[in-house]
Amino acid sequence: MSGRLAVIGLGPGDDRYLTREASDALAAADALYGYGPYLDRVPVRPGQTRLASDNREEGARAEAALRHAAQGAAVAIVSGGDPGVFAMAASVCEAIETGPDSWRAVDIVIVPGITAMLAVAARAGAPLGHDFCAISLSDNLKPWELIERRLEAASSAGFVIALYNPVSRARPWQLAKAFGLLARHLPKRTPVIFGRAVGRQDESVTVTPLAAAQDIPADMATLIIVGSRDIRLIARPGRSALVYTPRAVEKVSA
Amino acid sequence: MSGRLAVIGLGPGDDRYLTREASDALAAADALYGYGPYLDRVPVRPGQTRLASDNREEGARAEAALRHAAQGAAVAIVSGGDPGVFAMAASVCEAIETGPDSWRAVDIVIVPGITAMLAVAARAGAPLGHDFCAISLSDNLKPWELIERRLEAASSAGFVIALYNPVSRARPWQLAKAFGLLARHLPKRTPVIFGRAVGRQDESVTVTPLAAAQDIPADMATLIIVGSRDIRLIARPGRSALVYTPRAVEKVSA
Repeated sequence: MSGRLAVIGLGPGDDRYLTREASDALAAADALYGYGPYLDRVPVRPGQTRLASDNREEGARAEAALRHAAQGAAVAIVSGGDPGVFAMAASVCEAIETGPDSWRAVDIVIVPGITAMLAVAARAGAPLGHDFCAISLSDNLKPWELIERRLEAASSAGFVIALYNPVSRARPWQLAKAFGLLARHLPKRTPVIFGRAVGRQDESVTVTPLAAAQDIPADMATLIIVGSRDIRLIARPGRSALVYTPRAVEKVSA
Repeated sequence: MSGRLAVIGLGPGDDRYLTREASDALAAADALYGYGPYLDRVPVRPGQTRLASDNREEGARAEAALRHAAQGAAVAIVSGGDPGVFAMAASVCEAIETGPDSWRAVDIVIVPGITAMLAVAARAGAPLGHDFCAISLSDNLKPWELIERRLEAASSAGFVIALYNPVSRARPWQLAKAFGLLARHLPKRTPVIFGRAVGRQDESVTVTPLAAAQDIPADMATLIIVGSRDIRLIARPGRSALVYTPRAVEKVSA
């Protein structure tokens, strides 16, 4: 009597980033769980129920969806971006690990989506064209000292760095501190890309040198990409500059 | 008289991973450039020309497409996975930087796609659920010592590591050396995920402890994810294990 739980990535922004697999998985579900604004992006289908919850209730949402699926239903959780990157797929796994045995019998299907760093990178050129990393700046669930250690390790080894969850009301100072720390390992002119609401009508993309990055506003809808020593900027008359990381590295630069 | 060049990510495998934006961009092109097997995945449209080239001719392909677009045409380059991750978008930027001024007037549009690590992670659970990095193991264009330094920095700072381009005929020993180096920083039981041809009919996903990873065959169609100290494995009766990285980190573990 075990059912199915699909964890579906919608991509960032509107439905331009939706894959065929995600569309099919949304259509096949009896019930959709998710954060309200994500559910609002899914076309309504008669007979399909919707259970919206707050963005901070990831654990409770995962448990409710698993309980529902374990009764035999075809359930889906919708996630912005990719569900596997700082999102609902890990919450579902956590709930399965600590939950009743019956949840281990549920058919779990993760449907990947375009994660924010890929969409922001595409707008700017190819900043993720060579080795890169993704770090969540949220210290809600890990110590700030670990975030600092990862920023230092990544910047000094020459990784381009995508910063997820850069700022929230409860975490006002962490981003400026991160930029300060990165400035000890990277040139002041290193390009930093701020992509906000990419794929939505109010999308904005800003490129600024690291030395001025702390003056650019950011929020939870912002994804930030900090370049490495190898990153390059191509000026184009009448067009925005292209930012990219070359495939070739001549020497160990950092 | 400047035209348009779209660099389009098809995602891995068949068209289940294609986004609506990518479908629209493919349909709008007068001419498609790309590696033959990628072009073969795009439905034929009368009046649209196709120019296939070898996988190693990325620079020449970018230049040919830019030359064509600069004459006013709507040109597209197709790329497997995401064009911004170790793929054609960086080659196009390189060609623009070194090419004639007229190429800077071409309208460049990068269309993101599902990159291999997201598709492989989705099959295994949520191994990229927290901080992670992506490293190309190819030392064709960068020194091997830099790759070693990045592997050490990433594993000792607790990043999950996605390895692109793990093995080729010309690079037979690098992957075993990388596993040996990682084993100095990570427990022997650390899960390693091998995803081969994900999204294709001959897809296979294997999870093995790091101590046995060197015995698993890999090739250029394989994407490998090496866990961190925090990664967890959930056994499920009658189903494959789920591998995931928890959102919470209690302490600085490495």
